[in-house]
Amino acid sequence: MRFRLTPRETSFYDMFAASAENLVTGSRILTELLGAEPSARGDIADRMRAAEHAGDDATHAIFHQLNSSFVTPFDREDIYSLASALDDVMDAMEAAVDLVVLYQVHDLPKGIEYQIEVLVRAAELTAEAMPRLRTMENLTEYWIEVNRLENQADQVHRKLLAQLFNGSYEAIEVLKLKEIVDSLEEAADAFERVANTIETIVVKES
Amino acid sequence: MRFRLTPRETSFYDMFAASAENLVTGSRILTELLGAEPSARGDIADRMRAAEHAGDDATHAIFHQLNSSFVTPFDREDIYSLASALDDVMDAMEAAVDLVVLYQVHDLPKGIEYQIEVLVRAAELTAEAMPRLRTMENLTEYWIEVNRLENQADQVHRKLLAQLFNGSYEAIEVLKLKEIVDSLEEAADAFERVANTIETIVVKES
Amino acid sequence: MRFRLTPRETSFYDMFAASAENLVTGSRILTELLGAEPSARGDIADRMRAAEHAGDDATHAIFHQLNSSFVTPFDREDIYSLASALDDVMDAMEAAVDLVVLYQVHDLPKGIEYQIEVLVRAAELTAEAMPRLRTMENLTEYWIEVNRLENQADQVHRKLLAQLFNGSYEAIEVLKLKEIVDSLEEAADAFERVANTIETIVVKES
Repeated sequence: MRFRLTPRETSFYDMFAASAENLVTGSRILTELLGAEPSARGDIADRMRAAEHAGDDATHAIFHQLNSSFVTPFDREDIYSLASALDDVMDAMEAAVDLVVLYQVHDLPKGIEYQIEVLVRAAELTAEAMPRLRTMENLTEYWIEVNRLENQADQVHRKLLAQLFNGSYEAIEVLKLKEIVDSLEEAADAFERVANTIETIVVKES
Repeated sequence: MRFRLTPRETSFYDMFAASAENLVTGSRILTELLGAEPSARGDIADRMRAAEHAGDDATHAIFHQLNSSFVTPFDREDIYSLASALDDVMDAMEAAVDLVVLYQVHDLPKGIEYQIEVLVRAAELTAEAMPRLRTMENLTEYWIEVNRLENQADQVHRKLLAQLFNGSYEAIEVLKLKEIVDSLEEAADAFERVANTIETIVVKES
Repeated sequence: MRFRLTPRETSFYDMFAASAENLVTGSRILTELLGAEPSARGDIADRMRAAEHAGDDATHAIFHQLNSSFVTPFDREDIYSLASALDDVMDAMEAAVDLVVLYQVHDLPKGIEYQIEVLVRAAELTAEAMPRLRTMENLTEYWIEVNRLENQADQVHRKLLAQLFNGSYEAIEVLKLKEIVDSLEEAADAFERVANTIETIVVKES
């Protein structure tokens, strides 16, 4: 069947909401990393990987629906961008946890907890905003706040980099830790792309 | 002339097939790196660069055809994505060889041969699949297999990273080798993007 | 208002010209970095940040206009690509200056002045070419020259990398300086993307 006669566009909203909810799950698993003994990190990484797989399934479902729908609730390229950006957030959060285990990092750098805090808040805001896509109402505050959070994440990230390069870490350790804090920064950037795509969608409809 | 009255869309198939064949050439040049004395690497890099230039020409021809064709055999954005992903594979393979020479690496890390093996296999599968784009038949196995290969490449890449960071390499050496194995991993990722784009094209047509 | 009845498409040209002019400003601020005492770099970084903010505003204005215009002077995706590539140039130049300050780099690597020289020239050429978008005339020379400059930038970048890894720098210093010269190389790549997008626009219209 090429064209769906009764387009179930509404499911796009549900799929985006599920994808965003999954980011809340992921960001909370990230938080567990902070207090955990190195021996407990393997289990955290396993659960993070499961969340990432769930995210992949959600993204794949959106792309499949997009490719087989004749009518979509908003521009195809914006649906694609939104799904991709949500997926990028999860990939970056999962990469961070994965690298901590893979590189057998002992101590996480001081200040990384602020990066994670921002990600938890951005995930919650995104999950709360997603159901409002249906009516396109009350979304301005959401994207302003996420942009503010991304600026904050950026400041925290820069402080972490300055700390890593201030001479108190061995070069190998700098390499390992930089990749981890860069992954968390990528997650914050991807949250901003989610918010900017939603802004684009709303502007087009207004 | 703005519109071509007798669109030669068929040439897209030929151009994609040529671009994929060129990746087989590139992946085989990559293999030569494994047994070669450092003194022989310059010549290998020269031939790799020639393959990369041939790839650039192929990509440019596809884009030019795309921009000057009124009718295309499948969605313009998918033609663009497919050509870009094929080009990305070659760029990443060429970058790896180039870095080996540029950084005057002495010993390649143990295990890199498995990364290259996967790339050769993915290139062969991609070149075999490309002519089937015309009929859109028997492509499912291809993309499943390439996705499987990419997972395998990912495992090999992770093992290589763990090895580089286990403390037996000097920091500068880690920096050099990491960039090389990361380039090869990028090539595997780009092969997966090729496969995913082909899946998208087939799903849209079904 | 959904559709603009008297589309002010011309403003796209003005906005692109302004965005390109801003890159000339940015590239000149970059030049100041070369002779400056470390103590003077903070001020240079501040002015670079201001130029980057001006660039962000220009990009945002283009996207907003794009999303609210019914008719555009050329394909929407090309307007999007052009604005994004111009924005990427500025982001990369700003990142380079920022990292010099953040990492408290003492001596910039010998040869970085050639990278910056190429960026200044590419910025000037781009700013000169932009007003010719209106008539689409005399643009071939521009994109050939920018592609030539990008190749030159690439050669300079490779020499800088070889120098960084030749054993005379400490690993931490290599990490810092590599990120800076990579940012400048990204700026050169983004100038090439600007030129390639303009080529695409012209080919489509011919």
